[in-house]
Amino acid sequence: MSHTTHPGNIGAAARAMKTMGLRQLYLINPSHFPDPQANAMAAGADDVLDNAVLCRKIDEALQGVVLTVGMTARVRDISNEVSSPREAMPQVLQQSLTQPVALLFGTEMSGLTNEEASRAQILVNIPANPDFSSLNLASAVQVIAYELAVAAAVFRPVMQELQPAPHEQVEGLMAHLEKTLFEIGFFTTQNPARMMQRLRRLYARARLEADEINILRGILSVTTEYNARLETRYRRENDV
Amino acid sequence: MSHTTHPGNIGAAARAMKTMGLRQLYLINPSHFPDPQANAMAAGADDVLDNAVLCRKIDEALQGVVLTVGMTARVRDISNEVSSPREAMPQVLQQSLTQPVALLFGTEMSGLTNEEASRAQILVNIPANPDFSSLNLASAVQVIAYELAVAAAVFRPVMQELQPAPHEQVEGLMAHLEKTLFEIGFFTTQNPARMMQRLRRLYARARLEADEINILRGILSVTTEYNARLETRYRRENDV
Repeated sequence: MSHTTHPGNIGAAARAMKTMGLRQLYLINPSHFPDPQANAMAAGADDVLDNAVLCRKIDEALQGVVLTVGMTARVRDISNEVSSPREAMPQVLQQSLTQPVALLFGTEMSGLTNEEASRAQILVNIPANPDFSSLNLASAVQVIAYELAVAAAVFRPVMQELQPAPHEQVEGLMAHLEKTLFEIGFFTTQNPARMMQRLRRLYARARLEADEINILRGILSVTTEYNARLETRYRRENDV
Repeated sequence: MSHTTHPGNIGAAARAMKTMGLRQLYLINPSHFPDPQANAMAAGADDVLDNAVLCRKIDEALQGVVLTVGMTARVRDISNEVSSPREAMPQVLQQSLTQPVALLFGTEMSGLTNEEASRAQILVNIPANPDFSSLNLASAVQVIAYELAVAAAVFRPVMQELQPAPHEQVEGLMAHLEKTLFEIGFFTTQNPARMMQRLRRLYARARLEADEINILRGILSVTTEYNARLETRYRRENDV
């Protein structure tokens, strides 16, 4: 849960989680936590609150995670594929067999920021009344946890085809890519933030494995070196 | 919602309903309503609260209803068939095409009474962690309303086979049956309440149509008359 405003919602979410057999709560920079209101609303799920992991930044919370499902109530500017909870949960279960996964919830007022949503490989929208789509945050946690529990009851694993790389390796690639695109002058005529969002979506769909990230970073390194050599040669030949 | 204790839960339930496109809220003898706490938690679903129908008794709320789905967190003493939300919602949708249906929620602390549950043709249990199954009441409303909305999105009606009789006609039969069983002396060696529960379950499964209720009540009337004739004859012949 990222930047949750009301501690009561954290407690109610902990209760919702526990009713569906979930335990591991990560809180990214909550406004008030710990807080008596959180414990009051947890109504017996205090253990979930006691074991909650407090993080300052999203990348800290997603350390080691290979599949992040971001909850969204909006259609975002860059056309992302958005799944229903029912479509997404079997993928979450499949991935969770071998590696950590995360369900990511934004704030009460505005949900996930675009930056946070860009950390997700899958975006999920809870279908709702188009004229009144504002689910309470803890209710959204309840619905998603319920869908996960129901999916788990009928889940049959399939042969694992992919071993996606953890979050921090993907972020390492993204930082390297952005840096490289700046260095080679790609961004002079582009909107860097928007272009990075598109590239993130592309690689999120691909679900990169560690080997593939190494290959791509190898290409980036060579690209820069090549560019550096070109520049050196240019300077030398033009005496600048 | 029957005998709801906390007005905040009524408001949160109204919000949950509206997010999933539901509007008609019936409140059976709530502890506090209207109440500012309800409006605070409704967070914009005040229209659902404003249009809520206040009833003193469950039979008043179920007037005209042909299919009642009772929510239960417990396995009850008399072995009822209990469905999952996913199993039950297509039946609710099918029935709602032609006649009123109801989703019935009990109190925060103890759910539906046995008497209330006996009014339901279908009992539904939200699958939960066996060690911590206490969903918040409004969260339960959210999950059920969500399941109904998701089911509605893919629902294809089937040919209607039955036209079940409304609640009050079924209750009329039950009262008639109980009275008759007393009159003919059936209950002398039986636990009347328990036996009536079993008979209720049987007829709930049958989903009686109005014609069939008339037939059964006809049989009951004749039974009483026959019994009355027997008694008269017995008195005459024995001079009592």
